[in-house]
Amino acid sequence: MGQAAFQITRAVHRAALVAGDRPAVLEGEVRRTWRAFAARVARLAGGLRRIGLAPGDRLAILSLNGAPYLELYYAVPWAGALVMPMNIRLAPPEILAQIADAEPTVLFVDAAFSRMLPDLRGKMPSVREVVSTAAAPDTRAYESLIDEGPAIDDEGRSDDDVYGVFYTGGTTAASKGVMLTHTNIVVNAYNVALGFALEDDDVYLHAAPMFHLADSANTFAVTMMSAAHAFIPAFDVAKTLEAFQSYRITRTLLVPTMINAVVNSPELGRYDVSSLRTILYGGSPMAPAVMAKALDGLKCRLFQGYGMTETAPVLTFLTPEDHVAGLGGGDEKARERLRSAGRPVPNVEVRILDPGGRPLPPREVGEICARGPNVMKGYWGKPEATAEALRGGFMHTGDLGFMDEEGYVFLVDRAKDMIVSGGENVYCVEVETALYAHPAVLEAAVFGVPCEQLGERVHAVVVLRPGQQASCEELVGHCREHLGGYKCPKTVELRAEPLPKSGAGKILKRDLRAPFWKGQERQIH
Amino acid sequence: MGQAAFQITRAVHRAALVAGDRPAVLEGEVRRTWRAFAARVARLAGGLRRIGLAPGDRLAILSLNGAPYLELYYAVPWAGALVMPMNIRLAPPEILAQIADAEPTVLFVDAAFSRMLPDLRGKMPSVREVVSTAAAPDTRAYESLIDEGPAIDDEGRSDDDVYGVFYTGGTTAASKGVMLTHTNIVVNAYNVALGFALEDDDVYLHAAPMFHLADSANTFAVTMMSAAHAFIPAFDVAKTLEAFQSYRITRTLLVPTMINAVVNSPELGRYDVSSLRTILYGGSPMAPAVMAKALDGLKCRLFQGYGMTETAPVLTFLTPEDHVAGLGGGDEKARERLRSAGRPVPNVEVRILDPGGRPLPPREVGEICARGPNVMKGYWGKPEATAEALRGGFMHTGDLGFMDEEGYVFLVDRAKDMIVSGGENVYCVEVETALYAHPAVLEAAVFGVPCEQLGERVHAVVVLRPGQQASCEELVGHCREHLGGYKCPKTVELRAEPLPKSGAGKILKRDLRAPFWKGQERQIH
Repeated sequence: MGQAAFQITRAVHRAALVAGDRPAVLEGEVRRTWRAFAARVARLAGGLRRIGLAPGDRLAILSLNGAPYLELYYAVPWAGALVMPMNIRLAPPEILAQIADAEPTVLFVDAAFSRMLPDLRGKMPSVREVVSTAAAPDTRAYESLIDEGPAIDDEGRSDDDVYGVFYTGGTTAASKGVMLTHTNIVVNAYNVALGFALEDDDVYLHAAPMFHLADSANTFAVTMMSAAHAFIPAFDVAKTLEAFQSYRITRTLLVPTMINAVVNSPELGRYDVSSLRTILYGGSPMAPAVMAKALDGLKCRLFQGYGMTETAPVLTFLTPEDHVAGLGGGDEKARERLRSAGRPVPNVEVRILDPGGRPLPPREVGEICARGPNVMKGYWGKPEATAEALRGGFMHTGDLGFMDEEGYVFLVDRAKDMIVSGGENVYCVEVETALYAHPAVLEAAVFGVPCEQLGERVHAVVVLRPGQQASCEELVGHCREHLGGYKCPKTVELRAEPLPKSGAGKILKRDLRAPFWKGQERQIH
Repeated sequence: MGQAAFQITRAVHRAALVAGDRPAVLEGEVRRTWRAFAARVARLAGGLRRIGLAPGDRLAILSLNGAPYLELYYAVPWAGALVMPMNIRLAPPEILAQIADAEPTVLFVDAAFSRMLPDLRGKMPSVREVVSTAAAPDTRAYESLIDEGPAIDDEGRSDDDVYGVFYTGGTTAASKGVMLTHTNIVVNAYNVALGFALEDDDVYLHAAPMFHLADSANTFAVTMMSAAHAFIPAFDVAKTLEAFQSYRITRTLLVPTMINAVVNSPELGRYDVSSLRTILYGGSPMAPAVMAKALDGLKCRLFQGYGMTETAPVLTFLTPEDHVAGLGGGDEKARERLRSAGRPVPNVEVRILDPGGRPLPPREVGEICARGPNVMKGYWGKPEATAEALRGGFMHTGDLGFMDEEGYVFLVDRAKDMIVSGGENVYCVEVETALYAHPAVLEAAVFGVPCEQLGERVHAVVVLRPGQQASCEELVGHCREHLGGYKCPKTVELRAEPLPKSGAGKILKRDLRAPFWKGQERQIH
């Protein structure tokens, strides 16, 4: 084509043009239009250039959520450099390891992280400048960069140019910097905007951490649609509910535990959340009871997204219709699909491959692999790991799963600790929690065993505390006080000896389960 | 990336997976699912390969609307070849000129065009096979190719590979083959799906000709969303209304003259058109009275799209909200914007440039230029024309216009001397060339004049050579021998005195045109 084609910053240019007077940023008392936002980004890019950020350099971001994060997401490529968003839960040695790996020349810290600077100083040879929104010693004041920085022309990074380096994992050994290109990000923005049905009058709340692609994938879609961004520094039930009300939030992304906290909050009724239209969740499946409560209490549509950093990130979506069908009862297939991650988004091909790279038929478990314009360019400085992950032209996610006949993707690793009994999902951890609440129980493991009537039956293996007594009937009766009947163990086995454990002390449930399933390997329907 | 990224056929693979049992094709009694559609495409690709269509070859399509057109749009790239959809209104010499230019090896004709074969045979040295849905002599039977052709693997053409060659204009001189890539087409599909708010339960009617990118842009979006395609062979008021009712059509694309015919039809009340949600129109602006009638009579949302073949095609959209605001009265700005072409779609940058390539401020008239992932790779076999059209990295549309402060694009005149008549582009120079070929013609000027039915009517002003005679009828008949009917003058005016000319001797067509447009300035303002 010989022309810039996919360019992340183009969304800002367009928003300034077509939505110049509409809100870009809502944060506390601050209300900024897209025109103002674009002007700040151009000046911030100039300010960063002035302090030495050169095209191709990396700028690391260690920050809670806020408008500066959003501005950096656009100003850094505007200046021709690469963003490097960092996990906010890392310990200083982990931060230093990632900085040593990607060698950013500039580090941005917000007020929360400026307190960590003393632990980092002198150990980041690549970092020549630290920019901060806090008045910390030896840092550049963020707002001054914008005030003084000349507005510069967009460097026009695009297409296969790397937009940013996004680290996966946390520890030095496991952590890899995923290089995502402008094309990767823009295509994902299209899929999110399309699947998530974003509109230009939407107001999106950044509640989940902005460094994470689950939230930042929405970032680029929201800007592409010239919708509005609102922020809370970090998730917190009260702050989230307050933000829903005060910003008239229409969309957000939360992880299931956050949704659970919100829908079970006694505060819920005190806020006006009527503006909410849609919640996207990801990271893990959600208990149907929580889904139902969310649909009922928040009166909004639910989307589940599944993916990973390497795929920019969305691979599959479970739609609002899937949620409603599954919760509506009736159809067993629809209920089963509530446990799935949904189906592939447009232009992304998802395949279940065997270890030899051959595609497997429906319902056979293999590695979930994908190809498409959203697949990363590679791992920063790790050509071998890149070649391994992308062998055969497919991104190998490392997740095991299967696909049903209509393309719904089921992760078996996730499904593993769940029992489908009589068409109902039973989460083992929930039953184990109830058992552990009995004063006589020392150890408990719950899993499914074959059952003609129910498909799977809830089975518990229990070790009692020394000197304590409890009959199987009593333990089941105890569970009934805490759980719905279908979740209670149908059979309980009392053992005298401790349960088998891994080196790390985790109960080896697989070993306990195996004898029951011998000869009739558990199919995940 | 090193992987296939944007691949048009991926939409078929995905639809077969996620919508395998849902309708792909509705045509008369035929109802085919996406699973069946994908299977036919794989076999058609195999059948085409078997008769010699090789990767990189072109396959020309001369056909009215129908399921075979849709199947070819996917089977041809599946086999690794390029589509070459041809204007259905061309005269044989024009067809032969385009075939000589792109040298397709296979030609597909439907029943309507198989009648033209005797005029073409022996004059298409590149064409080794003719495939037809009609039982015409020396042709391959289309259905037999599918029945007998082995299903083959998708060749996986993608990204910057050329998907097809789409001709603009008609004569050897004016006609250029626009090379559109897989990326171009897929990005436009995203913009149409997103802007047009396509959903997977939509049923789209192909009423406008499928060779034209106005309709085929929707084709790729509809398949990408796994929605359904319905067909009528060609536009006709009664057939369209009947199709709305019988297929429960939800979306379609029509040109303004077609919408005008539908909303003014006395038949309208006799059909159930309640399924209609949205009509996209393009080609030219629509009179507000017709818009109001469409909103009222069809109870659907209106979208206007503006673009050109070279931009795959959509550059701007005027949204349903823009239509409602403009027709709602009140705001003068909103009313003015009804005459605009709307605003740039995501990831497409539209600029108004002066002749030196410098961007102009709002409301100053210049050439409408664009860049983005939707811009063509170039013109087939015309590197100079390509370089000229894409100079400075921008596609130069040839249209003159301006942008207002909020990005609404107003066309003030086609920079090219072109008439839009009944939704078809007629290049004046082509018609003038035909007139000048008549021995009695001394001077000829062709331009559009207002016409209720067609929007614009092709009008010619002719001065005869001294001592020569020719009636208006004779001149029109002469044109018909060289040009498609829609290009021939509908009215001819013979003048005795020489036509007004500029100092450089150029006929001042503007002066000739002016009296016809007085009072109803077509100027967009």
